[in-house]
Amino acid sequence: MDHELFWISGSPYSWRVQLALEYKGVSYVSRRLHTGTQEHRSPAFLALNPRGKAPVLKTGDAAICESVAIIAFLDRVHPAVPLFGRTAQDHGRIWQRVFEFENYARDPIEVEIVRPLLRGHAKENAEAMRASAGCVHDALGWMDQALSSATYLAGDDITAADIVALPNIQLLRRVAARPEATEMALGLDELSARLPALGAWLGRMEAMRGYDTAYPPHWRSP
Amino acid sequence: MDHELFWISGSPYSWRVQLALEYKGVSYVSRRLHTGTQEHRSPAFLALNPRGKAPVLKTGDAAICESVAIIAFLDRVHPAVPLFGRTAQDHGRIWQRVFEFENYARDPIEVEIVRPLLRGHAKENAEAMRASAGCVHDALGWMDQALSSATYLAGDDITAADIVALPNIQLLRRVAARPEATEMALGLDELSARLPALGAWLGRMEAMRGYDTAYPPHWRSP
Repeated sequence: MDHELFWISGSPYSWRVQLALEYKGVSYVSRRLHTGTQEHRSPAFLALNPRGKAPVLKTGDAAICESVAIIAFLDRVHPAVPLFGRTAQDHGRIWQRVFEFENYARDPIEVEIVRPLLRGHAKENAEAMRASAGCVHDALGWMDQALSSATYLAGDDITAADIVALPNIQLLRRVAARPEATEMALGLDELSARLPALGAWLGRMEAMRGYDTAYPPHWRSP
Repeated sequence: MDHELFWISGSPYSWRVQLALEYKGVSYVSRRLHTGTQEHRSPAFLALNPRGKAPVLKTGDAAICESVAIIAFLDRVHPAVPLFGRTAQDHGRIWQRVFEFENYARDPIEVEIVRPLLRGHAKENAEAMRASAGCVHDALGWMDQALSSATYLAGDDITAADIVALPNIQLLRRVAARPEATEMALGLDELSARLPALGAWLGRMEAMRGYDTAYPPHWRSP
């Protein structure tokens, strides 16, 4: 079964799917979209996803959108390295972790902290960002607590929960280290030192199979 | 396998799981939590879900939180009436629909329109609510378009996508019909007339197996 992945470098949602593919050892044709030339707004791509959002996975004639849906699909097609567990109980616990991240961590991190920093709107949003940093601390504290009694977010193995969470956390670390962010004293830089169990998990995840291959290429340039 | 469901009447997230259980014909012990007496804040319930949120499904010693995770778990334990498809391709398409609803429809409906109306904060939030109504129109328009070429959100059968979406839509219809909402002219009342394909789907869903049993009991009182 041939897969084509349409992805954007640095998009945490694209990165999730790349991690899943690489970790599972599934080969795919890479279709990188360059946002600078609006490739994600081209008629050809909008025919795959009318929302103009990456990632999209094309398999034969079928295109699947939404990062977690793509990972769930891949897990059904390539079950050898399971990301959603082997038993029903594992399955439920892993999905719980995925939705806990999606429902309580993702938007506070992405919408309320990362986006204003990436868009250069931090100064005019400073007050709202300081308020949102509290939600992010709560979300990261929840992860740190979960990881203080387990190797990975849903137990002893890497699962979809880890792969869903990692890219958003890495993007947060990247932008929170910028001077305009550290000046705001949001307490979101140096996460590994502030939250040791989360820090140890980050180290394990950075050593996972496929991490280097899936790493956003434009993050490597200075 | 014995299930106990902890739920709150009128919570769309609880209602999703009740619909899944009833539609599948899975028996369970009903544990209704009364928020008036803060039962969702009791030590016994917080031991099951430290966030104090319903629904929670307890099966043996294991408790699963987050409505969609519970439905995914139930689908593994009771596969006879599948809610996530039989083939990998169906599985991917259904999860895509679930995440499209969760990511683009749920919060605009719930957080930005329903919550201020339920809490009696509509007047002071009127401007923000008018702006958000545009997002809700987009989200409902997407559903109406999907439903104009299919019987249900992910094809010819009722799936998790329909069960995830229905309770939030029904709650929106309920609060949008209140005088304080219709006075604001948000265009969110009379949805069945405004969006015929969505309206026809609502009729089909209200006739689904288990709809009456799962209906929020306190909505029946005048």
